[in-house]
This record gives sequence, C-alpha cells and structure tokens, in this order.
Amino acid sequence: MSSKIRTISTIGIMGFGAFGRLMARHLQPHFALRICDPVNAPAPDASGKGLQPATAAEVAACDLVILAVPVPAIPEAITTLRPHLKAGAIVLDVGSVKIGPARAMQAALPDDVEIIGTHPLFGPQSARDGLAGLKIALCPIRGKSTPRIAAFLRHVLKLKVIVTTADAHDREVAMVQGLTHLIAKILVRMEPLPRTMTTASFDLLMQATEMVRYDAPNVFMAIERANPHAKAVRDRFFALAEEMRLFLEHGHAETAQSAALPHKVAEVAQV
Amino acid sequence: MSSKIRTISTIGIMGFGAFGRLMARHLQPHFALRICDPVNAPAPDASGKGLQPATAAEVAACDLVILAVPVPAIPEAITTLRPHLKAGAIVLDVGSVKIGPARAMQAALPDDVEIIGTHPLFGPQSARDGLAGLKIALCPIRGKSTPRIAAFLRHVLKLKVIVTTADAHDREVAMVQGLTHLIAKILVRMEPLPRTMTTASFDLLMQATEMVRYDAPNVFMAIERANPHAKAVRDRFFALAEEMRLFLEHGHAETAQSAALPHKVAEVAQV
Repeated sequence: MSSKIRTISTIGIMGFGAFGRLMARHLQPHFALRICDPVNAPAPDASGKGLQPATAAEVAACDLVILAVPVPAIPEAITTLRPHLKAGAIVLDVGSVKIGPARAMQAALPDDVEIIGTHPLFGPQSARDGLAGLKIALCPIRGKSTPRIAAFLRHVLKLKVIVTTADAHDREVAMVQGLTHLIAKILVRMEPLPRTMTTASFDLLMQATEMVRYDAPNVFMAIERANPHAKAVRDRFFALAEEMRLFLEHGHAETAQSAALPHKVAEVAQV
Repeated sequence: MSSKIRTISTIGIMGFGAFGRLMARHLQPHFALRICDPVNAPAPDASGKGLQPATAAEVAACDLVILAVPVPAIPEAITTLRPHLKAGAIVLDVGSVKIGPARAMQAALPDDVEIIGTHPLFGPQSARDGLAGLKIALCPIRGKSTPRIAAFLRHVLKLKVIVTTADAHDREVAMVQGLTHLIAKILVRMEPLPRTMTTASFDLLMQATEMVRYDAPNVFMAIERANPHAKAVRDRFFALAEEMRLFLEHGHAETAQSAALPHKVAEVAQV
C-alpha cells in the first residue's frame, strides 16, 4: 500500500440517490466531482462547471471514491470500480451499517487502496438547514487517511466526527436507528394521527417520525437486516411491548408471569 | 343553578402533587389560593402572602375549585368537598382523561355548581420554560363560565385553548398520550440507551421520552386504563409491532399472512 499522502482533488461518487445528491451539494465547492449512476445520473451541465455525469471508470480514477449505493449493492459496485482504481486511492462507503461493507471492501479492494467506512448520521431531512453540528462516524479499515478526512469534515463541513470501529458502530446504531425507524414505521401505519390536542412530547415524536419516514426503503432494510446487532434490539423492544400489553390487559397481578410470555409468543410465530 | 356571573377571586386547589404545584405557581399572582393536600401540603408561609395550607372546607368555599388529585381519587375528593361548596361555584378537574371525571362530577356535584373538565396538555417538564404556547383542552359540562375561563387562560397565561367534548378529547388523547407514554415506558426499560452516535430523529425521540418519564405512575394508568379509547389504540400499536416483527423475521414472502397472526398471539396471551 502507498504510504504517500496525496492531495485529494477529485472525488468520484458511485450512486446518485437522495444521499449522493446531498453529498454532492456539499462537496462540490471543494472538489472536482465525477458522478456515476446508471439510473439517476446528474443532468449534464453545459457550462462544464456543474455536476457532470461520468462513467464508472472515471469515478474509479479519482483520488477519493465514495460508494453511495444501497448496502446490498456495495459488492457489485466494488467489482465494477476495481479494475480502474488508482494505487493510493481512498475508497469509502456511506452505508447505515459498517460491519458488512467493511468486510466487503476489505475482501475485494486491491491492497494498494485505502479504505474507510463512514456513516453520516443524518439525511436529507435533518440536513435541510445545513450540516453544521450533525454527526458522522468514521471507521478506519485500511490506511492512514482517516485523520485528514476527519479534519476536513470537522473544519470545513463543521460536522461532529466520531472515530470508532465497525462493530462498536453497528452495536450503537442498532439501537439509535433500529428503534427510531421501527417506531416511525409503526406510527406512520397508524395515520391519521392527531394534530390538535397534542402534547410537546407527542409533537417531538411526530418530528422524529417525519425525519425518517421518507427515507428510501433500502435504508430501513439495511438498518434492520444488514446490521447484525439489530435483531437483538428489536426482539427486546417487542418483548417489552408484549410485557406492557399484558400488564395493561391484566393488571399488576400478572406482571410477575409476563416475562415468560414473549417466549410463547415466539413459538407461535415459528409455527 | 345560578346564572349570575361572579368575579373569581379565590381559587381552591385540592391536591398538591407535581401538577398542583405547577398550577399554584402560575395562578398565585392572580388569585388568593387555598390549597389542601393531606400528604403534600404546602409549607405554611410566615409572611401570610405565600401559599397557605387550608382545610378541605376552606378549599370548597372558594369561587373556583380545582380537583388536582389523581383521576381515581376524584369521586372521593368530590364527596369531601361537596358539603362546603358555594352555590354558583365552578368546579374543574385537570385529569388526563375527561369522560370518567365528567360523569363523576355531573353525578355527584350539586346542581347549583358549574362544572368544566380541563386537560392541560403539558406537565412540569414541558412547562419548565413557561406556559406560553402550551395547550389546554376545556370540556364544558354544566354552566356558562367556559368563555371567561378560556379568556383568562388565553390572554393572561398565554395558553392555546381548545374547547371540545369529553369524548372527542379522550378519542384524540388516546393516541397522543397513549402512544407517547407507551413508547417512552418501553424505551426507558431499554436503558442504557446510546448518547454518542445518535441521529437527529433519535435525539427527538429521547427528548419526547425525557418529558414524560418522570410523570407520576397514576398519570400513565389514567392515560392507558381510565381512557375508554386507549385500549383500541394500543391494541393497534401492538398488532402493527407484531406485523413488523414477522416481516423482519421472515421477509416479504410472509407479509400477506402476517395480518392474521396478532390474533393467534392474543389467544396465547389469554391461556
């Protein structure tokens, strides 16, 4: 692997969905961007200064390559980009889970390419008033570029940078996003929800729901299925919900027994 | 019943828990208060100008009498106060449900007493920065005093006043408070919850939880048990949670069947 510190002047973005577009808007003032998305390519800009659609090879030839595709599409994106990557290039993903993408990148990317897993803990809704103060997790996988990437994110984009490991990330985010998105999905299915006699806490719950309800379906699936810690978190949530149901149904007398009941429920569900 | 409009100069508060104290703080600049609580009586103030502990008879003799006791204690409070109420006095409760207290007050209070059910849609947490902009529901039960009470709440305390019926209130609040408190109770039992790699929506969810977690246990029981519409709301929440559990466990293929499963679960729970 090259240990030479290069200046990052070109950034390639593979994938131009909601998050790819958000990134491009904030990176464009600082770097020459090359964007490839067979479905959502940016419209060509006649001035030549705006966002230009590029080929996968052009994206791969950049100093920094960002995989902004859904988590399950990361291995395929790597296969497409791999032959065109430069020695010393930095590859990073932006998925909501980190263990899986880190393994995929480590297994399939050439040894002379640096790797960082990242998870911007925000989306188009929470970033609508700008990036300042929002959080991003960085998981260094291979190479020494994390500090300078972190410095750019901190000082230029004003993000709060959390350097961590893929496992620590997935463990914490299994609760953070796992619970938020699960509760939001349930609440959205209960609509119409009240808008008049609301309390401050209900208003906050609705704001939390609004922030994630328009996320692409693959985001929810990545959070709940691709995170190896997510199942334990939601099983706990569902077991506590069931305890609460029984407590409210039958009263104090049966709470001592209620801890055993989620197992029975699980057995039925497996029939 | 007296149709004469009297000036309200004295207010009696029966019950001096967290909400009684909050009310007293905001009403004290405008009225002479008499407060009775056998357990949480206010400390006597030597200056004679502060909050003074009073007997139930002194509370009942006020122009306006507020029942600030837990919902299940309302009938007993009425029995205690009833012999001492003045003709033309206004009695109001501040419970989180309105159908039950309205019936209890209507059945047991003398005909020459006016009755209003109220639900301040806030508590010590949400009112910590003041009352302005917070909401209160008023349900006129007997008499003509609602407009002038509403005018005071709007113009002096700067509250948003919603005039409604007990049934419309309980139906809407079954969702508003029923869902918020249910979710908060479950989340509190999942602690320790993450504080580092959090998203904006998770932070909002935590703020919503913080606002209700220190409420007295009787508040949760009133919301979930004393509201006749609460069970249908939480049964729906639990059924949707169970659908979501099965969907995430087994994937798309079984979602068509999942709607039937909550019934099986309910059967087991009744064993």
